[in-house]
Amino acid sequence: MPFSISRRSVLGGAAGGMLAAGTGLDAASGAEDALHGALPRSVDVVVVGGGLSGLVAARRLRAKGHTVLVLEARGRVGGRIHNHHLRDGSTIESGGAFIGPTQDRIAALAKEMKVRTFKEFTTGKSVYVSKGRAQTFEGTVPSIQLGLLAPDALLLQSRIDNMAKEIDVNAPWNHPKAAEWDKLTLHEWIVDNALVDGVVDVIGAWTQPGFGSDPHELSLLFTLWYVACSGNASNKGTFERNANTSGGAQESRFVGGSQLIPLRIAKALGHRVALHAPVRRIVQGNGHVKVVSDRGTVRAKRVIVAAPPQVVRDIDFSPHMPLRRQQLLKHMPMGNLMKCDAVYKKPFWRAQGRNGFGIALDGPTRAVFDNSPPNSDLGVLLAFVGGDTWRKYGLETRAKRRAAVLGGFAQMFGDEALHPIDFVEHDWNQEKWTGGGPVAVMGPGTMTSFGRSIRVPHGRVHWAGTETSTYWTGYMDGAVRAGERAADEVHAKLR
Amino acid sequence: MPFSISRRSVLGGAAGGMLAAGTGLDAASGAEDALHGALPRSVDVVVVGGGLSGLVAARRLRAKGHTVLVLEARGRVGGRIHNHHLRDGSTIESGGAFIGPTQDRIAALAKEMKVRTFKEFTTGKSVYVSKGRAQTFEGTVPSIQLGLLAPDALLLQSRIDNMAKEIDVNAPWNHPKAAEWDKLTLHEWIVDNALVDGVVDVIGAWTQPGFGSDPHELSLLFTLWYVACSGNASNKGTFERNANTSGGAQESRFVGGSQLIPLRIAKALGHRVALHAPVRRIVQGNGHVKVVSDRGTVRAKRVIVAAPPQVVRDIDFSPHMPLRRQQLLKHMPMGNLMKCDAVYKKPFWRAQGRNGFGIALDGPTRAVFDNSPPNSDLGVLLAFVGGDTWRKYGLETRAKRRAAVLGGFAQMFGDEALHPIDFVEHDWNQEKWTGGGPVAVMGPGTMTSFGRSIRVPHGRVHWAGTETSTYWTGYMDGAVRAGERAADEVHAKLR
Repeated sequence: MPFSISRRSVLGGAAGGMLAAGTGLDAASGAEDALHGALPRSVDVVVVGGGLSGLVAARRLRAKGHTVLVLEARGRVGGRIHNHHLRDGSTIESGGAFIGPTQDRIAALAKEMKVRTFKEFTTGKSVYVSKGRAQTFEGTVPSIQLGLLAPDALLLQSRIDNMAKEIDVNAPWNHPKAAEWDKLTLHEWIVDNALVDGVVDVIGAWTQPGFGSDPHELSLLFTLWYVACSGNASNKGTFERNANTSGGAQESRFVGGSQLIPLRIAKALGHRVALHAPVRRIVQGNGHVKVVSDRGTVRAKRVIVAAPPQVVRDIDFSPHMPLRRQQLLKHMPMGNLMKCDAVYKKPFWRAQGRNGFGIALDGPTRAVFDNSPPNSDLGVLLAFVGGDTWRKYGLETRAKRRAAVLGGFAQMFGDEALHPIDFVEHDWNQEKWTGGGPVAVMGPGTMTSFGRSIRVPHGRVHWAGTETSTYWTGYMDGAVRAGERAADEVHAKLR
Repeated sequence: MPFSISRRSVLGGAAGGMLAAGTGLDAASGAEDALHGALPRSVDVVVVGGGLSGLVAARRLRAKGHTVLVLEARGRVGGRIHNHHLRDGSTIESGGAFIGPTQDRIAALAKEMKVRTFKEFTTGKSVYVSKGRAQTFEGTVPSIQLGLLAPDALLLQSRIDNMAKEIDVNAPWNHPKAAEWDKLTLHEWIVDNALVDGVVDVIGAWTQPGFGSDPHELSLLFTLWYVACSGNASNKGTFERNANTSGGAQESRFVGGSQLIPLRIAKALGHRVALHAPVRRIVQGNGHVKVVSDRGTVRAKRVIVAAPPQVVRDIDFSPHMPLRRQQLLKHMPMGNLMKCDAVYKKPFWRAQGRNGFGIALDGPTRAVFDNSPPNSDLGVLLAFVGGDTWRKYGLETRAKRRAAVLGGFAQMFGDEALHPIDFVEHDWNQEKWTGGGPVAVMGPGTMTSFGRSIRVPHGRVHWAGTETSTYWTGYMDGAVRAGERAADEVHAKLR
């Protein structure tokens, strides 16, 4: 199943007032406080960022008896996780959406929050498009149809797994070959090792949705670490588990949309979540920390910062973050990703015996999924427009992009795709408080030069966010793990 | 002369109050205004950044009859250009220092400002260190001593020149092979094309001081463009002109230190330069621009932003910068560079028949120069500690770094190097308003994805800074050219 595409699990977030003005049912109790109430002058722990990671940290610390306050810049919680409501009231995700095996922490959390999952639709054939020619294939391994590409990609995949197996997810920079691998891009490694041309484009259909990047932007070491992280303490990460639908990270989705999880945590936290409160400064001294936000200054014993690297970089720290960590943040740009969903009266491709999954070696629809909501007659096709594809189509006008994406869908599923009843776009690159998607990435040199600073606390300031996780980094599961780990660090200091 | 190392010309800047508290002679008239006076409510043009590029732009616009105001974040002018005064009153540079052939615009400006140049000391033998073994060589081409390395490096250099020759300095992204070259790192290209191992380390001794980066961090296309920029309209850029001392970018220095040039421009601008005035917001609307700084808000018809990409990125623009330019800035980290100068009673290496120039394939002193000031008995050895070398030694304690750097000097010039009378460090990575040195760099993909936005005005906001120049980008000459070009753009709009 090497050709199924990683559907990002950690995306999300958008403009709007989800928490306060959201779905009604899920609006936080205390929404007025969240938006307008005076902030407390002092709490045990301030959490910067109301994405999944920050909310999980706050919830865990509160459960251990500490007073907490989450300061969120946006008018909603969820960060890279953001529901979108279709006209019949059903829900799709504009951001992080999927859950799969070994993602234990998000699974446990969803259960506690009473958010159920459903299996992604996989019945029928997938579609592979090369040079404008569409072919269908069974399951998710188009081995025969792809000719030589498939065995070659399979071989590379197995070599990636073998290298990733050796990586210590806690310290990839310690691998004996770390320096060598970190000097290479994934692109370079593929070109040097592939037997046939074109494999790099197949891998690009994995990295564009998975990293918002193309193989030439990714350090080989970083990529291997990312694959190694696609597991848990008892199951080593593999390329397959990262990339797959059935048996992989894109196996299931959440009924009602993934954002239900952060919304329900925030609801339980109530007035302990303050929206529209971007944090500008964090000042340490005399045994406490002052957190300066647009809604006021709060004093805390400890702080957890749970925001994407490029957002953390914009906070004014006093004293400064250690040089190595400053440099790390400067060298971790977010990938470029947007999601384009075409909504149809029904999932017409299913009647053709197609499952809605498709990959293309060029054009605007490199990675396509059936994104139809459960409990709805509507059909939704989703294109991940990432990396070079975003650079080409994401910077176009909406009208041109819409036409191009629908054309790509039509190539895969026929002309019916040209006539959706709605077209929904979400460009994460335009979100000030996220800055791209789905995850921050590392080019050559960054991991070995600066990586070891990623989780090292800066005095009383601790770090969360999916980028700091050691399993399922870049995913919702990683966000949960990082929030839990940061909360435990802080709890140990406050006992 | 392929083994001479690019001594960066555009560095500079540091903490301190140069303009107000500086050398006395060169302190700006109106220093009180610069520090404390009320800002004008409105001028024709606000220039953001009092480095060389911004000052040149302001000076040029003023000469054409426009009212101007330079807003500088630091307590001094000069940006990456910063003098350091030794105990005998002589001057060395902590930042950008050198000038060479085809750098016409900085040359003309220096002449106008009555700042003279002197030739860098090149009499005697240079030193090459590999695996702890030092060898001397004549001139700057250690061809025989390097064995196979030299002809191989020479061959690669000539291939780089041939490729760079084809690059349009205004639009490197238009080259037919732009996409291909931008997917490769310089490291990858060298490894694929070198005949013997080790060449990449020789090239690293060029890129560490020249880019604050190692070859694996640099896109091949970006590097070729950089080489192409090392010339002027009538002389195509070459690797040699970029890298060389005699006949190259490191041919001469300025008597009294390069910072004399920005200091004298600032003096002439007088109250039109405001220090300690970091700009936080730039708001456009209704035919004017509001520039919000820590010292107040100023209204202007046009604005020129002349700051490093990572500093521009921190300004809050309303409306936002175009997406492509936002992404460009996020993908242009500054290189990592510091300068370490050991000061001796005399330039003792000259008595040994050595010119003070040395390169090493490893250790803390990869690129060493005679940095002795003119009109002084003192001798100064300068090590550029950049890229991976900075990551190793720059993050050490000062004591350990000092010992390591002096050990490196001793390897080249004997044990006398172990006993300096002073040791001066300047780490540009620690400068908030520069963020690294000597220049912002591009990894794979950035140039072709986002490069074309680099000089495109954003409404009434224009862009200067050496990174936006098309000749001698990264150098003082590029800073001057960019400032002149931006001023001309604005003048054309204001006529």
